[in-house]
Amino acid sequence: MNWYLQSGKESDVVFSTRVRLARNLKDMKFVGHMNKKDEEALLEKMQSITPSLGYGLKFLRLKDMDNLTKLSLVEKHLISPDFAKHKTETGAIMINDEENICIMINEEDHIRIQVLSSGLELNQTLALAQEIDEKLETLVNYAFSEKYGFLTACPTNVGTGMRISVMVHLPALTATGNSKKVLEAANNFGMNIRGVYGEGSKPQGDLYQISNKQSLAVTEDEIAKNIKAITDKIAEQERLARKFLGKDRTELSDRVYRAFGELRYAMKISSDEAKELISTVKLGTDMGIITELNDLKVNELILYTKPANLQKRVGKSLEEYERDIKRAEVIKEIINE
Amino acid sequence: MNWYLQSGKESDVVFSTRVRLARNLKDMKFVGHMNKKDEEALLEKMQSITPSLGYGLKFLRLKDMDNLTKLSLVEKHLISPDFAKHKTETGAIMINDEENICIMINEEDHIRIQVLSSGLELNQTLALAQEIDEKLETLVNYAFSEKYGFLTACPTNVGTGMRISVMVHLPALTATGNSKKVLEAANNFGMNIRGVYGEGSKPQGDLYQISNKQSLAVTEDEIAKNIKAITDKIAEQERLARKFLGKDRTELSDRVYRAFGELRYAMKISSDEAKELISTVKLGTDMGIITELNDLKVNELILYTKPANLQKRVGKSLEEYERDIKRAEVIKEIINE
Repeated sequence: MNWYLQSGKESDVVFSTRVRLARNLKDMKFVGHMNKKDEEALLEKMQSITPSLGYGLKFLRLKDMDNLTKLSLVEKHLISPDFAKHKTETGAIMINDEENICIMINEEDHIRIQVLSSGLELNQTLALAQEIDEKLETLVNYAFSEKYGFLTACPTNVGTGMRISVMVHLPALTATGNSKKVLEAANNFGMNIRGVYGEGSKPQGDLYQISNKQSLAVTEDEIAKNIKAITDKIAEQERLARKFLGKDRTELSDRVYRAFGELRYAMKISSDEAKELISTVKLGTDMGIITELNDLKVNELILYTKPANLQKRVGKSLEEYERDIKRAEVIKEIINE
Repeated sequence: MNWYLQSGKESDVVFSTRVRLARNLKDMKFVGHMNKKDEEALLEKMQSITPSLGYGLKFLRLKDMDNLTKLSLVEKHLISPDFAKHKTETGAIMINDEENICIMINEEDHIRIQVLSSGLELNQTLALAQEIDEKLETLVNYAFSEKYGFLTACPTNVGTGMRISVMVHLPALTATGNSKKVLEAANNFGMNIRGVYGEGSKPQGDLYQISNKQSLAVTEDEIAKNIKAITDKIAEQERLARKFLGKDRTELSDRVYRAFGELRYAMKISSDEAKELISTVKLGTDMGIITELNDLKVNELILYTKPANLQKRVGKSLEEYERDIKRAEVIKEIINE
């Protein structure tokens, strides 16, 4: 089963863990300074080493993918929106069937190794990213400085080239009006924390991403340790907020079950509304209130209500209004299956 | 089965038909002019003739009923709110088990014969009321004037002493903003038409009551004929409005099924909110969209979500907040039974 449908550690609060390593080749110009020929050389080099790298990775050029497939990868956080949009001709990925490894080629750096896990899984995810990194280093020559570490296109990534991102679901902190305070505290600990979707104070779906600001003059293990400490702290606060909400069990049950009722019986539903309702329903499931669902179904709801993955699931391209109707059907399928 | 749980003619629009005959006794002062002794004499007289009148009627004094029972009768439109409130010591009813006959004693007049039916059932309801009236006339002496007809406490009832009321459900006329226009037209035909619940332009539950203004210089059959004509006209307009709404089947299905979802999954719900949701759900059931319910269940939902009937059903008196929780439970029971 693909990682994003699985239920990982601390999945009541932590949705996923991602480790990303930015790497560049020594004997090539950086991205942005390459001409067409350079870019083609990079792609050919990476394609040629894919079988040797292993892990069941397949080399796929963006230009060989339809638009829906690219957008579905963006929705799964496997490739960046900018990459899907601006590197349609010269971008490529190396990806495995489980989709827990996705290496972007010719994004902001020559190579961006990404490893993803469900739930909070820092050590294992980091270990796999490091293992791939070491194996890759036997196949290509990295741009590396003894003084600074790995060299990257953007100075903020120089050093370890690593960014760890943990996606957390904070409906109770949001509902009790405490999310801002908690997130500001995290920022003071050298972490970026931002809403995954939308603008403004309340991200859609109550999803937030915690990631490290610093990648220089710090070891990979230290970054992982700090991310772990902050995530634990935020998860603790979220669980306290849930306990507080749970004191008025009737009020909370009413709220989560009404969301479930609307989700189950709507005949058309937008992506935004689905995110809101699923967030509330997930809270109900994670708190053991809603017994009609389990983690797998909630993860399916999250994935298949996103526009591109919805269309991928039904196997055809749909206009927005048709999507809203089909989304309601797919939600019923998942709930009733 | 009690009449209000049955599904009558044209029940998609017409909820119920009621015929009321106001009668007074010749040899007694009118209500409001009687002293305690007079009132007691009236009650004893009526009690004494109850067995002879037949129809399985039982004579019950309001002072022998608990408050919940009285309020449950008000909610079923079997007695008036004023009667329940102000005649606790000196009021009485003659009622049968089916509750389709309810004669109020010492309300605004000495006697108010009421016969009720589910759906649109003018002739049969009127015929039964007339039959009871004639039989009663053999047991008591009515105050009657050759010139004016039956004499009543309020001049507006003099003549036939009859008021026919038809309760109609007009969710589509309300939703399309046409209810006001249609209701004004009805008023011009000598009919009163008003929301059954609440004040303002939109009655709760989209229920309206059509009744005759005139009871003098007109025959009972003419009143019934006019009520029938106006009700048919309004029902036709409501069905046209439903057809119009039904053109966007998805929009309408979405609306009625979301209401069903909330109703089914709410963990606490007020009487007012239940009325609104049930009105929408009834529209969905009557239009063949919601297949999870039938007329009986909808009628049960309407009845048992009303505060006093809810408490009668669960067999105990409850505070408002407890009622809201119990109401949600009872709704689930009815839907799932």
